[in-house]
Amino acid sequence: MKNILDKNQNKADEVRNLVLSKKVLMVNIISSPGAGKTTLLERTCERLASELRIGVIEGDITTDRDARRLQKYNIPIVVINTGGGCHLDSYSISRVLDSFDLDNLDMLFIENVGNLVCPSHFDLGESFKLAVVSTSEGDDKPAKYPMLFKEAKAVILNKTDLLPYTNFNIESFRKDFRKINPQVPLFEVSCTKGDGLEEWFKWISSQNLKPILTSSLLK
Amino acid sequence: MKNILDKNQNKADEVRNLVLSKKVLMVNIISSPGAGKTTLLERTCERLASELRIGVIEGDITTDRDARRLQKYNIPIVVINTGGGCHLDSYSISRVLDSFDLDNLDMLFIENVGNLVCPSHFDLGESFKLAVVSTSEGDDKPAKYPMLFKEAKAVILNKTDLLPYTNFNIESFRKDFRKINPQVPLFEVSCTKGDGLEEWFKWISSQNLKPILTSSLLK
Repeated sequence: MKNILDKNQNKADEVRNLVLSKKVLMVNIISSPGAGKTTLLERTCERLASELRIGVIEGDITTDRDARRLQKYNIPIVVINTGGGCHLDSYSISRVLDSFDLDNLDMLFIENVGNLVCPSHFDLGESFKLAVVSTSEGDDKPAKYPMLFKEAKAVILNKTDLLPYTNFNIESFRKDFRKINPQVPLFEVSCTKGDGLEEWFKWISSQNLKPILTSSLLK
Repeated sequence: MKNILDKNQNKADEVRNLVLSKKVLMVNIISSPGAGKTTLLERTCERLASELRIGVIEGDITTDRDARRLQKYNIPIVVINTGGGCHLDSYSISRVLDSFDLDNLDMLFIENVGNLVCPSHFDLGESFKLAVVSTSEGDDKPAKYPMLFKEAKAVILNKTDLLPYTNFNIESFRKDFRKINPQVPLFEVSCTKGDGLEEWFKWISSQNLKPILTSSLLK
């Protein structure tokens, strides 16, 4: 295992150097299956694809269903099917980077395989990890799966529209999460209803590494 | 990887022989984080612990939160903390079996680590795998994570009470699932509201390997 992680780390450093030299922000999105990663990308592309040049790497065990949901935004998308594998690794990312015109890209989102555990252990060369968790999964996820919540540079709590219909205790969630990670931004949103997303759009735009020529978001 | 799986398989066969010789039904419950495995166990213990002698192995990365939720049923419970590991293996099960009085146990439920991918690859010596998936995860899970749905001997679709508030298409779910696994029972339930659970109680009781002396369920 140590050997696998060491090799992955070397390749991740290589990927990070390349992507940073091109001033591309690379975001590794990690969540349980069905927490709303693809819907977050749909909303983000809808709002930002006209001002930021966005690309997506879709990691899935099988099928290109998520990629097809994003096709309507006319952005470059590459699918990586892991064929049973439970996470992406830096080698798989390195192999597909050639498919993107990095000089003409601002942000590259990686939608990792739906899994709250294994993807946290693998550096892909990303600028940072983004954790997505949904209210319907229960408020105990930060306590029970701490590694991702510790590593993430931002956390999205999705499906706030379902709060009235679940026993999710948002105070308990915030408290457990802040014990693990007191600093990073937490966005409480509903990607299907649109609630709370403006703050996320502003924040992710402000992370851009290239100068934005025209942006309504940073005004 | 093959080596790891081969060793796991040998130990799983050993576990299976032991557990079967004691006529204990061992059920390996697998789902995403927060799909409702523990709530299913709560409902199942409430209904069945007076007629069947139930034990539970709680697999978690860290914490004993799930085990504490089950303490009120006065059943034997053993926690396995994987310390970051993304699944249980047959060695971890073998090590804790001594803690149970198998001669005086009917069913041993294993709540695996919340993960729709890795646990599917590891035989624990169980009688069968039970898949739990919830409506809030989206209807595309069987198509996107086929292995578990192929391997499971029964599937529980939980959180049917949230159907009115999600875009879950139950026809699409059933169709995708039946393509992968046409035969096994599918229980559509709400573990928090209690809907649909009677069929599950009847079915799981009927799987018991020891003669039940008095059971209202089998009448």
